[in-house]
Amino acid sequence: MSLVIVGSIGLDTISTPSGSVIDAIGGSAVYGSISASYFTRVKLIGVVGSDYPPSAIKVLQRHNINLDGLERAEGKTFRWTGEYHDLNKAETLLTELNVFADFVPQLPQSCISCHSLLLANIHPNLQLQVLDKTGSYQHVACDTMNFWIEGCPDELARVISRVHIVFMNEDEVKSFTKETNIFSSAKAILDMGPKLVLVKRGEYGSAAITKDAIYFAPAYPIGVVKDPTGAGDSFAGTFMACLEEHLELSEYAIKEALGYATVMAGLNVSEFSVGGILDIPREKIDEYKENLCRMTI
Amino acid sequence: MSLVIVGSIGLDTISTPSGSVIDAIGGSAVYGSISASYFTRVKLIGVVGSDYPPSAIKVLQRHNINLDGLERAEGKTFRWTGEYHDLNKAETLLTELNVFADFVPQLPQSCISCHSLLLANIHPNLQLQVLDKTGSYQHVACDTMNFWIEGCPDELARVISRVHIVFMNEDEVKSFTKETNIFSSAKAILDMGPKLVLVKRGEYGSAAITKDAIYFAPAYPIGVVKDPTGAGDSFAGTFMACLEEHLELSEYAIKEALGYATVMAGLNVSEFSVGGILDIPREKIDEYKENLCRMTI
Repeated sequence: MSLVIVGSIGLDTISTPSGSVIDAIGGSAVYGSISASYFTRVKLIGVVGSDYPPSAIKVLQRHNINLDGLERAEGKTFRWTGEYHDLNKAETLLTELNVFADFVPQLPQSCISCHSLLLANIHPNLQLQVLDKTGSYQHVACDTMNFWIEGCPDELARVISRVHIVFMNEDEVKSFTKETNIFSSAKAILDMGPKLVLVKRGEYGSAAITKDAIYFAPAYPIGVVKDPTGAGDSFAGTFMACLEEHLELSEYAIKEALGYATVMAGLNVSEFSVGGILDIPREKIDEYKENLCRMTI
Repeated sequence: MSLVIVGSIGLDTISTPSGSVIDAIGGSAVYGSISASYFTRVKLIGVVGSDYPPSAIKVLQRHNINLDGLERAEGKTFRWTGEYHDLNKAETLLTELNVFADFVPQLPQSCISCHSLLLANIHPNLQLQVLDKTGSYQHVACDTMNFWIEGCPDELARVISRVHIVFMNEDEVKSFTKETNIFSSAKAILDMGPKLVLVKRGEYGSAAITKDAIYFAPAYPIGVVKDPTGAGDSFAGTFMACLEEHLELSEYAIKEALGYATVMAGLNVSEFSVGGILDIPREKIDEYKENLCRMTI
């Protein structure tokens, strides 16, 4: 059993009301992989430049993340600079694609047919290229962001029609479907093919919506949210990792995955960059999950 | 065992994207009492004018609401005219106090010492007058609104310092406490004396916060919200009614009350005025509550 995660690997410069970091470990695939690593074997596919710090590689290795699909290209690593005035919305100040500009995802033989595949937030065309190369997967999911919804909705629609599970935040799902509430939005997505839509609602938690059921999780209550970057990636990575044990998207499977995804997203925002999701004893994570379930009616 | 509810009784003229009603049954005490009536014996205290329709009285009687504390004054009944452009925020177009202007709440002997008291949304000075007249109550709660938070925060603070349970929506609790999140806001309220704060978050559900614990409920998923008026009153009335069976604010008591309060608030918004909360078979309510619990992780 293993989960393949394809997405961005970057160095983030982030400023929030709690402080700032420069060239910190970031990228959708990195957040997703580290969070997922507590629950299953993860294989990361992405590209880094020659300046990618060995210490960051060590972090991934320490979390037993398989790096066979990690391409090391000549040039600079992808960089993102962002600022949060309020904690609900990132303002992108600078995106430097660097080696990511020419990235063509290659799937090592060991990644062609695994249990689950998460197409983390990257250009929908790259997500489509991966889908063209993949064999048999039990669960295939995509995440995305407003930038692609506005910039290439048709390509994104093609991705969505080919996956089982879609991760979007509330604004994104409404804007993509042009619906006014998350239920009608999710229905529109389900009508395109997927079996499950995960709507992320920031401090209000999340909803998992299938054709027949709706499940809700509150956000894990965090005293001070230091840095929201990567919370959605941690959520998606964890959710997919937790599905590893299940063939079907059963009520039990969805609720378990939703609970752990919520916990990892909460830990994610409690520190800058990946600081909140590193080296956590697994029993601590289980304890947080139990706390969370006890907090819901 | 009985729950005394003191609040406004009015006739509402409401316009929402789903339609409009004129002089419909309304008022915080009415919404609260009807919703509470499914769970306990309710005694309503308020005032109506000579124009209050007998059909509205019949609705209250049909729900076995004790009207010993209902004052009938000469003049016109309190009227509120409001509009919802989006469903999260009412715009008040007109408030006509009418007989409510000179209302001095009188507690019949049978209401001086009951199990629970809900000071529904009215002027904090009226809430204080009621508190001065009450004897021994197991649970005393107050609800309020932004109008009083802005207009008479000191009087409201005095009310809050004398009750066990406070109902406020998210914006209100932040604006009253000048805090930026619901947890620090709730802490500020708890520091004033109450043992429990219920933060209502509209379509995002609610949180119940004590010194030691936090509980969350999602909103009941309603396809089309026709009229949000009174949802908070139904929520508060039901919550207090469900506490009737409990002496302590235990985890079980709070979760049960939160679940039923969520269901009644959901039914409330599914129709205009009190249309959604009338004449519901109790087993239907229990079924909705079970559904809701199943929808949470």
